[in-house]
Amino acid sequence: MSGKLYLVGLGPGDAAHLTPAAAAAIADSGQLVGYRFYIEQVAGDVSDQVIHAMELGQELERAALAVDIAYAGHTVSVVSSGDAGIYGMAGPVFRVLTDRGWDGIAPAVETVPGVSALQSAAALLGSPLMQDFCAISLSDLLTPWEQIVRRLQAAAAGDFVAALYNPRSRRRIRHLDEARRIFLEHRPASTPVGIVRHAYRPEQAVTIADLGGLDDPALGVDMFTTVVIGNTNTYVHQGRMVTPRGYEAKQ
Amino acid sequence: MSGKLYLVGLGPGDAAHLTPAAAAAIADSGQLVGYRFYIEQVAGDVSDQVIHAMELGQELERAALAVDIAYAGHTVSVVSSGDAGIYGMAGPVFRVLTDRGWDGIAPAVETVPGVSALQSAAALLGSPLMQDFCAISLSDLLTPWEQIVRRLQAAAAGDFVAALYNPRSRRRIRHLDEARRIFLEHRPASTPVGIVRHAYRPEQAVTIADLGGLDDPALGVDMFTTVVIGNTNTYVHQGRMVTPRGYEAKQ
Repeated sequence: MSGKLYLVGLGPGDAAHLTPAAAAAIADSGQLVGYRFYIEQVAGDVSDQVIHAMELGQELERAALAVDIAYAGHTVSVVSSGDAGIYGMAGPVFRVLTDRGWDGIAPAVETVPGVSALQSAAALLGSPLMQDFCAISLSDLLTPWEQIVRRLQAAAAGDFVAALYNPRSRRRIRHLDEARRIFLEHRPASTPVGIVRHAYRPEQAVTIADLGGLDDPALGVDMFTTVVIGNTNTYVHQGRMVTPRGYEAKQ
Repeated sequence: MSGKLYLVGLGPGDAAHLTPAAAAAIADSGQLVGYRFYIEQVAGDVSDQVIHAMELGQELERAALAVDIAYAGHTVSVVSSGDAGIYGMAGPVFRVLTDRGWDGIAPAVETVPGVSALQSAAALLGSPLMQDFCAISLSDLLTPWEQIVRRLQAAAAGDFVAALYNPRSRRRIRHLDEARRIFLEHRPASTPVGIVRHAYRPEQAVTIADLGGLDDPALGVDMFTTVVIGNTNTYVHQGRMVTPRGYEAKQ
């Protein structure tokens, strides 16, 4: 009997942004791996299913558990907030599958995309991503900081709109200041910066600041925040952050 | 009476990936602006609603029409495939709103995020976006080609995974070859490249090639294709394109 493993993106964290495909994958699964709070918040009652709870930092262990369950012939969903393929659980699961010599067929593996944090942030801010953009995680747990700096420099020099994931944690407090310094070498201090905490959750907070003021502790940037740095054409109109699609449209 | 304007992302083009929030926005709208085919494909019967069809290149005219409708007190959805905020209709609408001196309040404007093309492509390819990535459109209709080249060079030098939108059209046939040349200056010819046409539609085609062979006309890259270029750590395992999350995990 061949098992099935779904990699499911829950979206930002409310049921209105959970796709039917993601809901169906969860309903189809006898077992779920992920954060119980997030799963119940978006998918409702899942009490008939076995939930393997996750703690932060357990990604590889949980991925291995899910792969075990699927190899044993069961159907299991590994759930991530946002999109499973963007800094989510798709990476650890495919790494485990590779290490185990997965044959590409059994267990079946299907990724169900979801609305990622950068899209939720953008939707709440206005239209900041309407030109070429990049996503950069400031977490140096798995990526050397020198590599992250190299990416920040490339993004700043290339005039990309930049969405920063994991911008600050209790342990990682100076990385965002360093990112700010790098972007200030290429963009004016007046460049709009959008700061979105807990998008589409009850604690949601949306702020538009500027690059010069991004080091203000009062902005409350933390690990639940996505920071969107505008490009040199981004402007603010009535509380919305707008990046013109065309370069002729600078306001 | 104050109108309402929704900017709705339909996702890739099947109902399974349309969020409930997007479906609700469409149902709440007496008028719709967009491509009739896409709307009916994902939202089902919308025959009670006035549909203002769009043709390619009419984005600003359609945006202006939608803003007119909302200022007249009606509720209207402007729909885009993928995510409205990523190379979608959010840009033209916010540009028109800015030009009209919109007060930020009336009409109300709400963006409903959707699954974007890069996420659909990634989900079908494996987990190519698990490290920092960027999105670059190769269309030079609104962006000078020199600016696009600058972005390609920055993305290649910064070792970003790169999702290329609008990689080729009948008129724009050499831009992808130029992108390939730029990336080859920084990455080996064996770098995996994912090519996804018509994700989640009946015509869907998923191919994994490599950077050296990206100029092969048989790959069929066109305007309905998203091209995902791996970073220097991306590998292929059993037909899946995998970018390790951690730099220690190079296979």
